Amino acid sequence: MTRFRYLSFLTDYGLEDGFVAACHGVGARIAPHAEIIDVTHLVPPGDVRRGAAVLAQTVPYLPPAVHVAVVDPGVGTARRGVAVTAGDSVFIGPDNGLLSWAVAASGGPVRAFSLTNRRLWLSEVAPTFHGRDIFMPVAAHLATDAELAAAGEEMDVGDLVTLPAPERLVRDSTAEGEVLTVDRFGNVQLTITGADAAEIGVKPGGTVRVHCGHRQLTVPYREMFGAVATGELVAYTDSAGLVCLAVNGGDAAQRLGLPPGARVSIAAVPKLLIQDAFHARRPRGTIT
Amino acid sequence: MTRFRYLSFLTDYGLEDGFVAACHGVGARIAPHAEIIDVTHLVPPGDVRRGAAVLAQTVPYLPPAVHVAVVDPGVGTARRGVAVTAGDSVFIGPDNGLLSWAVAASGGPVRAFSLTNRRLWLSEVAPTFHGRDIFMPVAAHLATDAELAAAGEEMDVGDLVTLPAPERLVRDSTAEGEVLTVDRFGNVQLTITGADAAEIGVKPGGTVRVHCGHRQLTVPYREMFGAVATGELVAYTDSAGLVCLAVNGGDAAQRLGLPPGARVSIAAVPKLLIQDAFHARRPRGTIT
Amino acid sequence: MTRFRYLSFLTDYGLEDGFVAACHGVGARIAPHAEIIDVTHLVPPGDVRRGAAVLAQTVPYLPPAVHVAVVDPGVGTARRGVAVTAGDSVFIGPDNGLLSWAVAASGGPVRAFSLTNRRLWLSEVAPTFHGRDIFMPVAAHLATDAELAAAGEEMDVGDLVTLPAPERLVRDSTAEGEVLTVDRFGNVQLTITGADAAEIGVKPGGTVRVHCGHRQLTVPYREMFGAVATGELVAYTDSAGLVCLAVNGGDAAQRLGLPPGARVSIAAVPKLLIQDAFHARRPRGTIT
Repeated sequence: MTRFRYLSFLTDYGLEDGFVAACHGVGARIAPHAEIIDVTHLVPPGDVRRGAAVLAQTVPYLPPAVHVAVVDPGVGTARRGVAVTAGDSVFIGPDNGLLSWAVAASGGPVRAFSLTNRRLWLSEVAPTFHGRDIFMPVAAHLATDAELAAAGEEMDVGDLVTLPAPERLVRDSTAEGEVLTVDRFGNVQLTITGADAAEIGVKPGGTVRVHCGHRQLTVPYREMFGAVATGELVAYTDSAGLVCLAVNGGDAAQRLGLPPGARVSIAAVPKLLIQDAFHARRPRGTIT
Repeated sequence: MTRFRYLSFLTDYGLEDGFVAACHGVGARIAPHAEIIDVTHLVPPGDVRRGAAVLAQTVPYLPPAVHVAVVDPGVGTARRGVAVTAGDSVFIGPDNGLLSWAVAASGGPVRAFSLTNRRLWLSEVAPTFHGRDIFMPVAAHLATDAELAAAGEEMDVGDLVTLPAPERLVRDSTAEGEVLTVDRFGNVQLTITGADAAEIGVKPGGTVRVHCGHRQLTVPYREMFGAVATGELVAYTDSAGLVCLAVNGGDAAQRLGLPPGARVSIAAVPKLLIQDAFHARRPRGTIT
Repeated sequence: MTRFRYLSFLTDYGLEDGFVAACHGVGARIAPHAEIIDVTHLVPPGDVRRGAAVLAQTVPYLPPAVHVAVVDPGVGTARRGVAVTAGDSVFIGPDNGLLSWAVAASGGPVRAFSLTNRRLWLSEVAPTFHGRDIFMPVAAHLATDAELAAAGEEMDVGDLVTLPAPERLVRDSTAEGEVLTVDRFGNVQLTITGADAAEIGVKPGGTVRVHCGHRQLTVPYREMFGAVATGELVAYTDSAGLVCLAVNGGDAAQRLGLPPGARVSIAAVPKLLIQDAFHARRPRGTIT
């Protein structure tokens, strides 16, 4: 008998309608003992990749839970609904890759079930609102007392739809990747990890050369944005362990024109080159 | 003795100030046993009709509760505050019609009370913040142990202010109505029900002719937006049982220029006419 | 042994990422008994003053709690993290003035501690996310069973960073101040209190002369915006006890071009002058 005190909930439903509340209500009716932690409901409509990134970076900080995630442009079509166990949690949502990065971050899928048991659904199912009528009721039942196997037919975890892992390539002194996501502050999170950066010699206190589009930037690599002056560009390893470009007190995504998916590569700048750069700009200056 | 475990809460307070939190705090102080389900706080300022629509479509999925709703452009003026029982819930808010559609959806008003008992209010009442100082404290007291009659003087339910029911007219082969609301995705929800549509021969798998303004559109009627190609218009019965116009992966309200209140009528398209339409477009094509 | 059932939480993290949820998760893991009341997470990025104003005006309505507030442009730099007791609550956040107005509104600081005890932090601390890795875990530990002194070294409350109190000056028949904050509705909240207004003879039912920039306005002073016609300017004492300028059904901040920080002064308008004003406009009219 599975039993969870927490549900988490991520969608692209927005906050201006009653969609999220209807799901909360369904959860409360079926699993009155459970608490729901809202991850976010502001995933851009249909942006599965963005939803997957936010979920994967948040789940490690949540208690064991039934995690419900619904970014589901194919709602009502043939795509499956699934329940996947990973780590000490269960993930429920459409089988479109949305769950895959969080499942991987939780140690990979252990068992998977296709949500075919209508007895765990609401009695009437709207083809356009599986979050309310299927995913949340199934999650609430599993959080209460239903055996996982009650959700439906077990399937091969190898058959789960997965998003390709965020692309990144480390070779010689360069790490190539792309913009994974942009946060509220306009900080640009790359698919390149802080460990990748360290491997090519990019470390806090040093300097990194950033290539994006036709542009090449030389940027200080620091521990936090506050280490540079207001309005200055800075690179650092962010709170999810990924390399991030920011403007202290500003919006780096806007300044650099870097949307999710844009290609970026980084390389360490040898000390000599930094000095050269300073020379070039201030030919008569002393080098510190 | 009434006792509710849940309060629900809908307002136009927005999320950038501390207004919602102050009300949550007042609720927690008076009714520490209760849980608050936020319906939405992003009703456009003063838009009573929009608030009424969201509340009515969400309440059926919430547990029995004291539902507090505050969209109250006349706060502080002579308009009454009321508590209305309907179904297994109590509705509390300004008597301006905001509650009326939800009360109707819950089976109609059973008893109504004018909120005149100041002992259930906060000791100081700001004329501009009855949500914090009257509605939430009264709701929290009723959720805890107060008799309903303690809220104030009983009134005739026939004296409650009601919004006119959403307009719709079915005759012969046409259903006329208007845009009830537009959701986050830009889906255009009409006042015409799925049952109305069925009555005039509009069913999933068929085709519907939509008149709006000077425009006439021929749109597939399907079970969900995913049934048409990305970027295509589609009509369907939505998760509230109402006819809805959508663009798969897009924003129908924007594309069609249809704000709440716009007049729309729909009619079934006989199969023959559909074929004619196809003929006209592909004169030498075969008809499938 | 301190023990709090409630945490409150205010940040500038926004709602589109998983930042708030990660903090909720950390709180739930350490203090599963506690409930979190979200004050707001839409403080404009880095706007310490706005965060301080919202917190100070909301806290009086919250139950005793560990209040966590994070608007922290200097995250990761030398600025301290602090825990401050005031009234029956504990305030936790960066020592940048953010907490100071709420602490003052709660009766002033009683004891203060620098958050130096790493045993109450998460084991790994990201330099850019102290909300998740330091402030929330410390708060959750203090809400559970930790002695306040466990947070770190006690410091002199006089060493806490404080924002200057909102500026206002009352002399003779004029009160001078500035725009403290603008709410969702566009209502312009001044630093001038309702008591200041009364002192210079501005009272509900009267008329106030408002100077802002090069403009001078004559505005009715009422108990609530509903007392004037839709679209009309009105001044009143708002739900936080401060003088506020509003447009009934409209956006006063936009209409008047008054952002936070703008200088405004008000003065009572003697009855005679009001009559003169009417004379000037309608030379042949009768005076009511």
